[in-house]
Parts: sequence; structure tokens; C-alpha cells
Amino acid sequence: MSKPVLNIGLIGYQFMGKAHSNAYRQANRFFDLPADIRMHTICGRNEGAVKKAAETFGWDNYETDWRKVIANPEIDVIDISTPGNLHAEIAIAAAKAGKAVWCEKPIGNTLAEAKAMMDAVLEAKVAHAVFHNYRKAPAVALAKKMIMEGKLGTIYHFRAVYLQDWIADPNFPLVWRLQKEVAGSGTHGDINAHIIDLGRHLVGEFDEVCGLLHTFIKQRPLAGEIDANLGAKASTQMGDVTVDDAAMFLAKFKNGALGTFEATRFAVGRKNKNSFEINGSKGSVVFNLEKMNELEYYNNDDPGDLQGFRLIQATDGSHPYAGHYWPAGHIIGYEHTFVNLVADAVTNMVEGKPISPDMVDGYENQRVLDAVERSHDSRTWVKL
Amino acid sequence: MSKPVLNIGLIGYQFMGKAHSNAYRQANRFFDLPADIRMHTICGRNEGAVKKAAETFGWDNYETDWRKVIANPEIDVIDISTPGNLHAEIAIAAAKAGKAVWCEKPIGNTLAEAKAMMDAVLEAKVAHAVFHNYRKAPAVALAKKMIMEGKLGTIYHFRAVYLQDWIADPNFPLVWRLQKEVAGSGTHGDINAHIIDLGRHLVGEFDEVCGLLHTFIKQRPLAGEIDANLGAKASTQMGDVTVDDAAMFLAKFKNGALGTFEATRFAVGRKNKNSFEINGSKGSVVFNLEKMNELEYYNNDDPGDLQGFRLIQATDGSHPYAGHYWPAGHIIGYEHTFVNLVADAVTNMVEGKPISPDMVDGYENQRVLDAVERSHDSRTWVKL
Amino acid sequence: MSKPVLNIGLIGYQFMGKAHSNAYRQANRFFDLPADIRMHTICGRNEGAVKKAAETFGWDNYETDWRKVIANPEIDVIDISTPGNLHAEIAIAAAKAGKAVWCEKPIGNTLAEAKAMMDAVLEAKVAHAVFHNYRKAPAVALAKKMIMEGKLGTIYHFRAVYLQDWIADPNFPLVWRLQKEVAGSGTHGDINAHIIDLGRHLVGEFDEVCGLLHTFIKQRPLAGEIDANLGAKASTQMGDVTVDDAAMFLAKFKNGALGTFEATRFAVGRKNKNSFEINGSKGSVVFNLEKMNELEYYNNDDPGDLQGFRLIQATDGSHPYAGHYWPAGHIIGYEHTFVNLVADAVTNMVEGKPISPDMVDGYENQRVLDAVERSHDSRTWVKL
Amino acid sequence: MSKPVLNIGLIGYQFMGKAHSNAYRQANRFFDLPADIRMHTICGRNEGAVKKAAETFGWDNYETDWRKVIANPEIDVIDISTPGNLHAEIAIAAAKAGKAVWCEKPIGNTLAEAKAMMDAVLEAKVAHAVFHNYRKAPAVALAKKMIMEGKLGTIYHFRAVYLQDWIADPNFPLVWRLQKEVAGSGTHGDINAHIIDLGRHLVGEFDEVCGLLHTFIKQRPLAGEIDANLGAKASTQMGDVTVDDAAMFLAKFKNGALGTFEATRFAVGRKNKNSFEINGSKGSVVFNLEKMNELEYYNNDDPGDLQGFRLIQATDGSHPYAGHYWPAGHIIGYEHTFVNLVADAVTNMVEGKPISPDMVDGYENQRVLDAVERSHDSRTWVKL
Repeated sequence: MSKPVLNIGLIGYQFMGKAHSNAYRQANRFFDLPADIRMHTICGRNEGAVKKAAETFGWDNYETDWRKVIANPEIDVIDISTPGNLHAEIAIAAAKAGKAVWCEKPIGNTLAEAKAMMDAVLEAKVAHAVFHNYRKAPAVALAKKMIMEGKLGTIYHFRAVYLQDWIADPNFPLVWRLQKEVAGSGTHGDINAHIIDLGRHLVGEFDEVCGLLHTFIKQRPLAGEIDANLGAKASTQMGDVTVDDAAMFLAKFKNGALGTFEATRFAVGRKNKNSFEINGSKGSVVFNLEKMNELEYYNNDDPGDLQGFRLIQATDGSHPYAGHYWPAGHIIGYEHTFVNLVADAVTNMVEGKPISPDMVDGYENQRVLDAVERSHDSRTWVKL
Repeated sequence: MSKPVLNIGLIGYQFMGKAHSNAYRQANRFFDLPADIRMHTICGRNEGAVKKAAETFGWDNYETDWRKVIANPEIDVIDISTPGNLHAEIAIAAAKAGKAVWCEKPIGNTLAEAKAMMDAVLEAKVAHAVFHNYRKAPAVALAKKMIMEGKLGTIYHFRAVYLQDWIADPNFPLVWRLQKEVAGSGTHGDINAHIIDLGRHLVGEFDEVCGLLHTFIKQRPLAGEIDANLGAKASTQMGDVTVDDAAMFLAKFKNGALGTFEATRFAVGRKNKNSFEINGSKGSVVFNLEKMNELEYYNNDDPGDLQGFRLIQATDGSHPYAGHYWPAGHIIGYEHTFVNLVADAVTNMVEGKPISPDMVDGYENQRVLDAVERSHDSRTWVKL
Repeated sequence: MSKPVLNIGLIGYQFMGKAHSNAYRQANRFFDLPADIRMHTICGRNEGAVKKAAETFGWDNYETDWRKVIANPEIDVIDISTPGNLHAEIAIAAAKAGKAVWCEKPIGNTLAEAKAMMDAVLEAKVAHAVFHNYRKAPAVALAKKMIMEGKLGTIYHFRAVYLQDWIADPNFPLVWRLQKEVAGSGTHGDINAHIIDLGRHLVGEFDEVCGLLHTFIKQRPLAGEIDANLGAKASTQMGDVTVDDAAMFLAKFKNGALGTFEATRFAVGRKNKNSFEINGSKGSVVFNLEKMNELEYYNNDDPGDLQGFRLIQATDGSHPYAGHYWPAGHIIGYEHTFVNLVADAVTNMVEGKPISPDMVDGYENQRVLDAVERSHDSRTWVKL
Repeated sequence: MSKPVLNIGLIGYQFMGKAHSNAYRQANRFFDLPADIRMHTICGRNEGAVKKAAETFGWDNYETDWRKVIANPEIDVIDISTPGNLHAEIAIAAAKAGKAVWCEKPIGNTLAEAKAMMDAVLEAKVAHAVFHNYRKAPAVALAKKMIMEGKLGTIYHFRAVYLQDWIADPNFPLVWRLQKEVAGSGTHGDINAHIIDLGRHLVGEFDEVCGLLHTFIKQRPLAGEIDANLGAKASTQMGDVTVDDAAMFLAKFKNGALGTFEATRFAVGRKNKNSFEINGSKGSVVFNLEKMNELEYYNNDDPGDLQGFRLIQATDGSHPYAGHYWPAGHIIGYEHTFVNLVADAVTNMVEGKPISPDMVDGYENQRVLDAVERSHDSRTWVKL
């Protein structure tokens, strides 16, 4: 008996488009899902580029008008992987058309957009998901499982950084991610959003925050031609950087834990250090995306002279997701967090269960982002 | 203008079958190759299992008789991923039929088999490759490039281990990998072969070796049902382990470097530590497969007070292979070594160039394996 | 020709007393100093305990009244290693008596005390020092040298934590370090003070701060008998914890760098993680006291494909202080930071040069501590 | 009631002389020993140098003729820290004079010398010790304790390296350590001896060995002036290197464990990597002298999904030796291994118990060194 087929329409074909395409291609190869994924249509404004993306990534069709993708009755899921300024309009239209909405983060460029999007999918009762993919790294999922089982006890501290350096060079050009009208914010929405999601997922809801956003380099060469990933060629004209280069804040969680968060694109030498440490009364865990197959764990119940941080390789069949791939010690990579997320989303959608993380998570995340921005403006603590 | 299509026939569908299938599925998605790969036919003796493998891994056809795959005129490449006792017959038949032969390592269960296989592909003038996939990890390829450029100077030491622990439990059953008539040898051919290949690739040819093979647990429960990866259920009857649990040797390379090699499945806690350190007059490098995106590098020309081992994340566009995947700091995994190998093999085959590593490498590797075995028997040094 | 002799009077004989005694005993053995240090008198209120300390640590005399030590004309230097509530009175009296004043940190329990102490030593024109000993770890001194030479370029980020866990158990008793009237503050003055000093030393003066102090466990068993280090036996009666268990803040430095600081005694598994990372336009450095012989360094000028954090072992003759001890690779420990500080202090005092760090550093440090406390109270940013 | 006094006479004042002097100076300061150590006399042939050493290190007297030190009735212990060619004569004379003999390793330059020395101390029934100081690192002592308690189960593998690079530069001069007639051997006796001792101490006696010794650089500039540590200034004349630059061997232990040993001074970037890994049926441990306060430990009995190598900081009061120094997380250094050894030796000598390690250990160690040399010559395995 054959499985139902889930037809995907993907809007966006650059970095995230590539990662999502790979996830749709691979999920059925490693997971025994309740549906077969069909890579139906990929959509982008530049016909030549999107045609090439369709061929390269393996989509059956391509399209330049996202409205036509939504209008296509064959398509079940609209995946939104565009720059942030297009999210809200597409998501709301897709929801109204009864399509499932799976969206990149942050879901909107403003809190109002995010709320409208969340309201739209809730009202339409469509399946919805947000691509906070790092929840799906086996080591992070293991940390979540341990916390749920009480292995860390009462949580005292969440200490997270997301450190990159790809714009530390003042001559790096003014790409779309550095323009507020397109990207919404800089590090804050791009990478702080990820560690905020991990904080919400692993520790709980925020109570209040106090922080700052900062731009070190205020003018940059205008970008020339854009390439498929993050790169762009510089020109000689200068333009204003209208987003933050770094964003950091202190937080109190509702359960009494304290948090520190720092995101920057100026940590020279740090390529993608999305790292957190959680200290609880019974133990601690440490994660670093650059070594994403590993979770450090300190068990306070170990005998006194044998205590130490363990380096767990979360690659064993006993670890979340890992058993679907390779034998213990054979690592997976960044792209697999998307495969895992898609596998979960397909399963839950078909089975009529809520997807985690979903657009409510997207909205709640954005409430924290927004509170930090207001704290920056008011120079004081802001309650969630 | 469309690209030529390369039709693959894969013999074997278990652990290596899964890894090779993934490589064929993914290579065109990340590399702009001179041919499109078609996953034509997968072959295995158990019809139910191979049918399921075909569906799961994405093969167009399946077959239970490898001779039919070789006989199929549509098929260009025969990929041999079976247990070692079947390699020689299939490879020689495939070569005689004019098919390209791409083979798992060690290519034969004996040196004589390996020689016959090498002779067959050379005589038939078909494209040939061997799956010493770890050459294709970006960090290893970077080490190779650095050595070629003279960055390490004269090489003094190669120090390699391949440590696993999956049979350290005496109750782990007698799977095929522990039976000499199927597997040929234990750790020696399975994992020592890998570090021998890295030694040959990075340092050069061996001059003489002296070593030992050892079996710690001489009887084990007979295996029951076999699963798709390494696992197997134990029964209550016992059988003889006829392969080595550990194999280690000292080596002199022809260029004067010294080597130490140790492979074991009894290094409790080590899941897949395929690790080497190379010390040269100008610098050193260190690699560990469990952290395969990283290469440690010590540059003896750095200023005296600023010298130290650098942790290079080989995930940047400037590193071999890495630019085909994700931005810097977004790691890849075990499976990508096969994707890279297939991308190289397809490219070179289409362009009529030798593939690296090829069956000559497979044979030379086996000469070292054989010399170590003779050293074990004779308790003395053996010249290559 | 014999060297002049510097006679030391040490007030306090517990943890810091032991560390300072060792420094005085060892400094002349490893450094060719312009004076010989004489361990003249150690002072404490408990005669039995101080007598034993004198014998164990190697002091020529002991005393129970610190005023007598100050009054002794033979003594040149008064070293104050008592709990914080006694610092000011002793320091001011010592300065007035014309003695050099070398004091543990934080120098006073309040900013007013700190100012009075600084004023006293400046007015009396005596040699003064403060035991911010971590400046004297070879790896930290190397970082300082690199920054002075411009090797890190413009500094963007200082990211520091000081993590311990020795009171994470709610049954740990109410020792003097948890009582505001004795200790002044908790983590804030005890360990945040250390990373604040490193921030001032390595990055520069603070511009403004915003932070919080927090007490997780508000009541603890009263302490029974006190032992020589940190320990104390618990009783069944409870008392109020009147200091902070954790203290954290964001900072802007006057030179435009951003800082994050977190100190806690509730980071289960972290014994003494005094760690910082500095990101500059040309490179980054990372230090962790638990691995205090190492400095990680990323040089942004390394060739693109060979960049990575180097693990410098700061144990070579080319590194600050290290050449006085053992050959490269033979590490030193915590206690040597005090030996180095004493060696520097003796040298500069004899040569009539300012000591670094001195009581002005102690006061400036305390201004930052005070500003963070006021920020906590006012829930807003506070200017220095 | 005052303690008895143990008077030490130290022969040798260079690197080891400095380390031993420090140990005698510090042992009573950190340990409550049954005797007070008096640094009575230091001895060396160069009067100016030994006089300065006496002053710097804190000895009461100096002497240029070791026979006079032995003849001095006040002296209880003769500590031999000279180059190896002088050990035997001094040790035998000291034993005959009824002095305790504490000797640097390897005890003799030949096996015959070692035997004569062992026989002399056994016959004279004097207290004897050998400075295999690395047994006394807290992390190594913890490993020993764990093995004794059965925490590692049956030991399968001992894997040790001792890697240095201080003569990798071909222009490094021909110091005494590179001359067979003075040093006896190169890496083999100097550093292989250390890992052999750790193997004997932790795993057990050797059964057979097979190995090689190798000299990469066969001629070097003659040394000029010698400095107090390892350094020496080069001249323009060349001389023959008569010792090994590297020494490596495979081993079988009597209890069935397998071992690999490699010592070299050509591992560029490795300053003092004395490192071992032990794999047993129940767990594994890893040690590296460069991070000597840490022991990695893998417990095979941990729950399956929470297994990993723990980084134990062996700095806690519950760890061997560590409680005598500083609170948890405050590390000690290389020199403390000597302090611990002296503390143990004094205690056991006074209490009339055997010292560990003693001259029998020194001799047994040398039997292994000798067997490896004979294996090198015969190109085959040699039984112990």
C-alpha cells in the first residue's frame, strides 16, 4: 500500500532554500515517514536562477510568482525561506488558501507581522512550523530529554552565545542581511533568535530582559552581484548599515533561572559558534554547534572524585535522531538538523499533531526579540 | 544541452550500500559534475530486503543476481559493497564485461585476490576506484594539500590509530565481520586498512613493517538475525572468532619517516577514532574522524612566543570540497566523504583521468596488510 | 655584596595567607630580585592557629594583634589578606605608619572604604599593590603584551565568566564569605572583581554598566567549625544569606568595546572557570584559569585556509614569567601567579617604580563593582 | 615535641637539581610529614655554579666532591641528579656508606649498572627511591587508584607517547643528552623510561617487546656554553649524535594487555606530551602531562545514552595529593610531582616502609629499556 504524498512549494532558493531542499530530498531516505515528500515547486523572482536551483536541488517545477504556488491545488505545504520582509504577506495568503505554512525564522520583521502570521495560521487551522532547526540536532534533543527527565534538576543558569565573524571586515559589502527594510534586524533576528529559541525550548518562558544592540561599522560598500550563499561583491559606493552588528542581553526566566545572551558577527575567528551552557542543581550541559554531534554533561551525582564534564557523542542509536543515520561515531552535519525537522513536521502534520516548533514559538520568540529592542531604547529592564 | 548519464549498479545494500546510495543521490546536488548520476540498480541476495533498500535509498531497480547487473548493457559502473569474500569474483567479471569497477576496501580477502582484481581492471582498461573515503574529508584533503606544498617540510613521524569499541562486550555476537572466511580479517582489513591508506596517501610508500594481530575474545555467541547496520542478535550457541580484535604495527616509510599504527575494536569509549598525527620539520597536523571538520596544524615558522596547534575548521570555501556545501562553520558529516569521493570519481571517469584512490591503491594497501600479517607470523620485520 | 632585605608582615593566614606565604617563600628561588624577602611575621587573632601557620608556612614570628605588626620598625610591607571588613582600618593605619601596603581584593567592603584606602597610600607615598594575581599568569601577561603590540587590532568584544560551584548545594553552610557584614558581597566582590580587573587591564576603562545580582538560596545552615580553606561544618540552625550567589552585567568600555561579565557559585561542574575571550579586528584570544598555562589565539592575518585558534602553551622561555620556572611544556600552577606578582612588586618597590596592579586599580575596580550594584538597584544603565 | 630532621645531600644542580631542591623546600610546607627536611648540602663540580645554586635554591652548604657529601655523617639521604654516567658509582658508594639513595632515572646507563645499584641498596638495606615522578601527579595517582579498585576491569590496551620537539632543529647543538657516553641513550632512557614506568605502574609487568630506535639527525654542531636548563649555545664544529632521536615499541604485558610506546624529540609542536590511554573492559582513562591536572575517564557502566569521556579535574580534596594544595579548580604544576614524591619518600623512609617507586622499579624499568634495544638489534620480539 503506497503512502500519501505531501507536495511542497518552496518560496526562496538561496542559502535556506538549499538547506530546505536537501531536507525534503533526504527525509524519506533516512526516516520511515507516514507520507512521501514530493518536491513539487520552487519559487523565486529571478527566473534563470530559480530554474537552475530547481535542477540542482531536484524540484519538479519552478515558478517566479509565489501567488501561483499558493494557488496551485496540488501543493500542500508552503515553505517560506525568503528574506524576512516577504514572510508575512506570503504566510497569511498561504494560510487563507488552506495551505500548511512552514516558515523560516524570525517569522516576521516586526512583532505585529509575527502576530498577524500566527493569528492567520491559527484561524485557518493549518499545520504550521517554524525553522528553529537547532532544536533538532541530536545533542540538543538529548539535552531537552535530559531536562524533561529531571537530570539537571532546578535550572539556575542559561548562558548562550552565537558568535560569527563574516562581516568583521569593514569592507564586507552591504548585503541584504545588513539592511533593516529587508532583514528586519541584524544579528538579533538572525542569530540571537536561535539562542532565544533554545532558551525557551530548554529552560522556559522569559520573564524580563535587559539588553543592547550595537553597530560597530556604520557604513559599508554597496553590494554588487549576489551569490547563492551569503557572499556578495563589493562596489565603491558606501551605504548605511541599518541593523545591529551585535546584540546582547541579560534575562530572567519565569522559573527563576538567569540567562545571558550574546550574538555578534564581530567575533573574529568564530565561524558559527552557537553555544550554550545550562547549569542546574543536579548537573550541567554544554553544546556548541561547531561540534554539534557532541554534548558535554556534568552529573553532580557521580562519585565525588570521578566527577567531570563528559563528552557525549550523540551519534548512537540511543540518541534522538542519530539512529536513522550511521553507526555510532560517524557524525552528521548541519544539514541534518533540517532533515530531522522536516521528518518531525511531516509526521506530525500527517498524524494531525502540533508541530514543534510552530508559529506560536515563532511569535513568542519575536516577543523576546522585541522586548530586547525596547530595553535597548529605554535603557532599562523590560517585562515580557 | 543535457549532460551524459552515468548508470550505477550497486552490489550490496547494508551499511556501505546505504552510504554509497546516499553519495550517488547527493553528488549532483552539491557538485556541478560532467555527468548526471542515475541510481539504476541495487543488488542483494535477499529479495525482500533489497527491494526495500531500493525504495528507501531511491534506486530505480533492484536485482538479486549480481551477474545480471553486470550483464545489463545500460549499466556503466559496478560498485561492489558486499562482504569481502565476494569482491574478487564480481570485480573480475565486471572488468571483463567492460564495466567501471568501484570497490569497497580492502579490495580482496587475500593479497592474491587483490592482485587478480587489480590486474583485471588494468587489463580491461576500465575506470576503477576504491572507497578509501577518508582521503575525501575536507580536513584530510587539506592536510594532503599542505604536505604537497611543503608546509610540513620533511616528514619524521606518522602516528595513527583507529579505535572502536563495538565488540568489546564479550557477549556481542559472532557477526560476519568476525568470521575470517567472510570478512578476510578483523580490525586489520576493516580499519587498519583505512589508516594504512592515509599513511600511503599522506606520507608515501612503506619500506618495512613489524606488527602483531591479536584476538582478546576467542569465542562469541552465534549471531541471530542481522540488521541493516552492524547489529545482530545473539543466540546461546558459541562460535569461534577467527579474525583479529586488534592489530598494531611499527613502520618505516621509504622516505625515512617512521610510523605507528594501531587498530582495535576494544578501545572502550572510542566509537570511531580514526586519528593521525604527522610531524614534519616545518610543522605538524592532527586529524580525528570523530571531529572530521577540524584539522589541527602547528606551524613551526610562527613567531616563537605565538606558536601553537591551530584548530582549523575545514568548512570554508577555501578548503577542499567544503565550498560545495554550506557557509563556513556549518559542518558536514561522515556521509559527505562518500559524496566527495563519488564526485571525484565521476569527474575523472568522464574526463578520462585516473581516479584517486584506485584499485592500484587498493592492492598496495593490501600488500601492507599482508606484510603485517607475515610479520605477525614470523615475529620479525618484513620488507615491502 | 648582599642584597637589601624586605621584611614582610602578613595579616591573615587562611586561604590567601597560605598563597601569599608561598609566594614570599618562592619568589627569590626563581627570580633574581633586587631584594631578599624575609618572611618576618604572620598575624591572626587565633593564637594557636596562627602559631601553627607560622611554622607550616615558614614565618619567623607570629602575632595576634595587627597593630603590633604595623608598629614593628623592622617590617617594611604590610600584606592584608584578612576578610574584607578589616582591610580599610589596617591599610590606613599601615600607610600612616609609612609601611608599604599590599592588599587582597576587593580592597574595601564599600567604595568609600576603597577610596579612603587609596587616598591613604597616595598621601603617605608608600608602595602599594593589590592582589589581582591573574594578571600575572603567563598566558594573561602574553595576552596583554599582544594587545599592547596591536596584535588584536581594535577590540570589539570582551566576554568573561567566573564560574564556580562550591555553594550550589543548599546545605553548604553560611560561611563568612556569605555574610555581607564580613565579606562585603558574594560572587561580585570575590570573583566578578577578578574578571573586571582583567577587563580593565586588557581592554581599558569602563564607560557604563547594566547588571544584576541574585541570591538563589536565601537561607543556609549556620556554619560550625571553620577549616583552613573554604570549608566549614554545617549546623542545624539556619541563617540568612546576605550576599549574591551570582552577579552579571553588560558593559560598554570607553574605547567602544562591549563586554559581558558573569560570576556565579552555582555553575555546577565548574570549579574555577575564570575565562575570557577577546575579539579584535585582527584576532582573538581566549583564556581559562583551569587551563591557565594555555592561551588560545586566532590570527586573522593567517592565510585564509590555515586560520584557526592556536593553543599556545605559555610555558616557553619566550613567554612572560615562564622562563623563570621549567623548560617548555612543564606547566606551573595557581600559586605561581602570586609568586610572579610578588616578584614584580618587590622589584618595582625597590626600584621606586609604581607596582601594577596597585591600590588605584583596586579603587577603580571597586567603582565598577559599585556601579553594577547601583544598576541592579535602579534597573538601568549606570555611567562610571 | 619537635620532629626528627632528615638531612639531604643533593648531587647535581641543573634541571633536575632545581626540581629536587624545590621539592625539598616545599614538602614540609604542604604536607604534615613525620620528619623535617633539611636542605643540607648541594654538590657539583663547578664551584661557582654550585655556590650560586646553593644560594638560589636555598641549601645550607655546597660541595664540589660528591665523596665528601657521602662521607659527611650528618647527611641521611644522597639524592643523585647528575647525568647518567655518574649514577652507579655514587649510588653504590652511598649505599655502602649506609645512606639512603634516591636516584634520578634511568638509574644506570647500562642494565649492568642498574643491577649493581639495585643490589647495592638491597644489600645495604638502605631506603631507596627512584624519581619516576609522574606516578605522583594527582591525575595519575587517581588512575592507579581506579585500576586497583577494578574500575577499568580487565585491561586490554595501554597506548603511550612521550613527544617533545626541542632538538627537531638540526642546528640544535650536541648537548650532553645527545652523547651516549654521558646520557646512556637519547629519548629511550630519558622519556621512554617514563612511559615504561607508567605502564609497569598502571598495567603490570612486561612479557615481551619489539621495537626500534632511530636517529634522524646524525651530526650536530658541538655545544658551547651550557646553561642551567636544557639549552646550550652552538659552535661551528660538528659532532656525531650517538643516541636515538626516537624510540618506539610494541609490547605484550604478562596479564594479556597490549601496549604501544613511542618517544621522540622530533614531534614538532609537542613540548612535553607525556600521554597515555588505557582501555579496559569497564572503562578507559586518558592522561596528558601538558594538562596534568586532568584525567579523562570513560565509564562503560554509565547509561547508554549518557556515556562519554569525563574530564575530571584532579584538583579536589578527594583526589590523591590535591587536598594538600589549593581548593578545587586551582591547579598545580610540574614541580609538584616532585614535592609529592619527596613527601611520600620521607614518610615511608621514616616509617620504615618501602618507597614507591624504588630502585627495584628502576632496575625493572631498565630491563624493558634493554629488551627494546636488543629487539632493535635483532629485529625481532624479545622476551623479558
